[in-house]
Amino acid sequence: MKHIFSYFLLFLLLISCESSAQENTFKVIPLGVKGGLDESNLSAYMLAPINSENYICLDAGTVYTGISKAISNGIFKENPEYILKNNIKGYLITHAHLDHVAGLIMNAPADVKKNIYASPYVIDVFKNKYFTWENWANFADEGEKPQLGTYHYQALENQKEIPIDNTELFVTSFTLSHSNPYESHAFLVRFKNNYVLYLGDTGADAIEKSDKLNLLWKTIAPLVKTKQLKAIFIEVSFPNSQANTKLFGHLKPNLFYNEMSVLATYTGVQTLTNFPIIITHRKPHGNDEAIIKDELLKANALKLKLIFPKQGELLKS
Amino acid sequence: MKHIFSYFLLFLLLISCESSAQENTFKVIPLGVKGGLDESNLSAYMLAPINSENYICLDAGTVYTGISKAISNGIFKENPEYILKNNIKGYLITHAHLDHVAGLIMNAPADVKKNIYASPYVIDVFKNKYFTWENWANFADEGEKPQLGTYHYQALENQKEIPIDNTELFVTSFTLSHSNPYESHAFLVRFKNNYVLYLGDTGADAIEKSDKLNLLWKTIAPLVKTKQLKAIFIEVSFPNSQANTKLFGHLKPNLFYNEMSVLATYTGVQTLTNFPIIITHRKPHGNDEAIIKDELLKANALKLKLIFPKQGELLKS
Repeated sequence: MKHIFSYFLLFLLLISCESSAQENTFKVIPLGVKGGLDESNLSAYMLAPINSENYICLDAGTVYTGISKAISNGIFKENPEYILKNNIKGYLITHAHLDHVAGLIMNAPADVKKNIYASPYVIDVFKNKYFTWENWANFADEGEKPQLGTYHYQALENQKEIPIDNTELFVTSFTLSHSNPYESHAFLVRFKNNYVLYLGDTGADAIEKSDKLNLLWKTIAPLVKTKQLKAIFIEVSFPNSQANTKLFGHLKPNLFYNEMSVLATYTGVQTLTNFPIIITHRKPHGNDEAIIKDELLKANALKLKLIFPKQGELLKS
Repeated sequence: MKHIFSYFLLFLLLISCESSAQENTFKVIPLGVKGGLDESNLSAYMLAPINSENYICLDAGTVYTGISKAISNGIFKENPEYILKNNIKGYLITHAHLDHVAGLIMNAPADVKKNIYASPYVIDVFKNKYFTWENWANFADEGEKPQLGTYHYQALENQKEIPIDNTELFVTSFTLSHSNPYESHAFLVRFKNNYVLYLGDTGADAIEKSDKLNLLWKTIAPLVKTKQLKAIFIEVSFPNSQANTKLFGHLKPNLFYNEMSVLATYTGVQTLTNFPIIITHRKPHGNDEAIIKDELLKANALKLKLIFPKQGELLKS
């Protein structure tokens, strides 16, 4: 009888390990995946715990068109305005370039009260450039009067975790260098003991003469080793043929792999095998999107699990 | 013999009149037709003389996605960047709200030198809000330094015609009231002795407590009577159910027809029969686009030729 009980315990343990290895913690709906030009498909990613409908939106280049695509793919049943109002509980904005915020601004007239989470610098750009009465209307509760009050700015301090209202998520912000001295940010999003890391536009440390990516890799490496970090979203904007002097604070495949090698020095090379990396922000110039993908796949000595997200198609991590 | 010659002349004259009645003078490629929210389809219209490939772009809410649609419809054979660079010779911007300029800004990195034609006020918004180094980059040759110099601002004085560089077109600007005192503009575009009138966002004179539309109708009425004006582009943003206090400087069907009645007092009612009116800027809230169309078609006592443009589908006038 004792033997049978032990076997039963072992069986339960195996089931549990098996299921935790396969279980997904997060779901992502890419609302836009490109790095410029195409107004219908610019950086924006809805993210929620796998069993929740309370999403955040990481960057907001294209919102409405992406939700419409997700609806036509059967991910949502309601109309775009319903999803905008009810399922996006807050926006997390890495930096204030228009291709990362245009969708938020454009959809503000149809939105309901929620927070915009960003660095004080990014919030100032919203106040001074976007939510003004000369170019649009002030949909926030700070800045030019009258204030329509749809959005409340929630400032993110560097490396200080805060909860995201009306979700089960928490966020920690890390400063990135996006054409030094211009700052962008990475967001480490936590659900219980699980994490996703989303990087906004960033150059490589070597090109930017920065240590910001190095510090980020060092900080998140323990979470990779413990498998608590489920995925990294990172940009690769240009193909390798782009001159280093013309990167404008972006990555290309060989610089991306340089950065992954730095991460590997902190995690160990084996740890990165099959680790999910979601490639964002490929610029749709000529045939560059295909070239970038090809260059990344061919140089994948680390055996990363490279994921090329598509607008309106569900990802799980 | 003399009789036969006279009949022949009469015959030629009839042929000529017949062909001039049917002949199209302008072609229009709508790059975006909606009045908000949907980032993939916002106000922008390429316009050229029927036999020319030298277009202007009237407003520029969505550019790249619209060109892509036109290409997939067989209107252009080249790629979107080629059309952007080679076929759009200049931008004419009615006002600086983001849904009328986002496409221009987003595509600036891929564009080549050309002019932006707009009022001094609109140009100031570009300089102070859009082409700055905090939210984007300065792609113009005025404003914050460094100036990348892709665009040159060409100020439009009220009611003073100027030529549009690298086209056979001329433009005269008229001030409109778009939520008084905010100003928008109408552009009267001339090719030889033929005209098209494009209105940016505008409220009705009665609601705006303005005489700007009245003055515009009075000014262009002679061109309607002589059939030199080939079409009017005008916005109808909301359905009739929208309260007059919530129009935010826009038209709805009954206010549109009030304005058309004013135009009819200057042209005569008969003159407007079958006159082409291109309805722009319907807001895609719920089922409103269909409702607006239905309300317009049902109340068309003037027998206007109402045209509902589609993104990427050629129109001729």
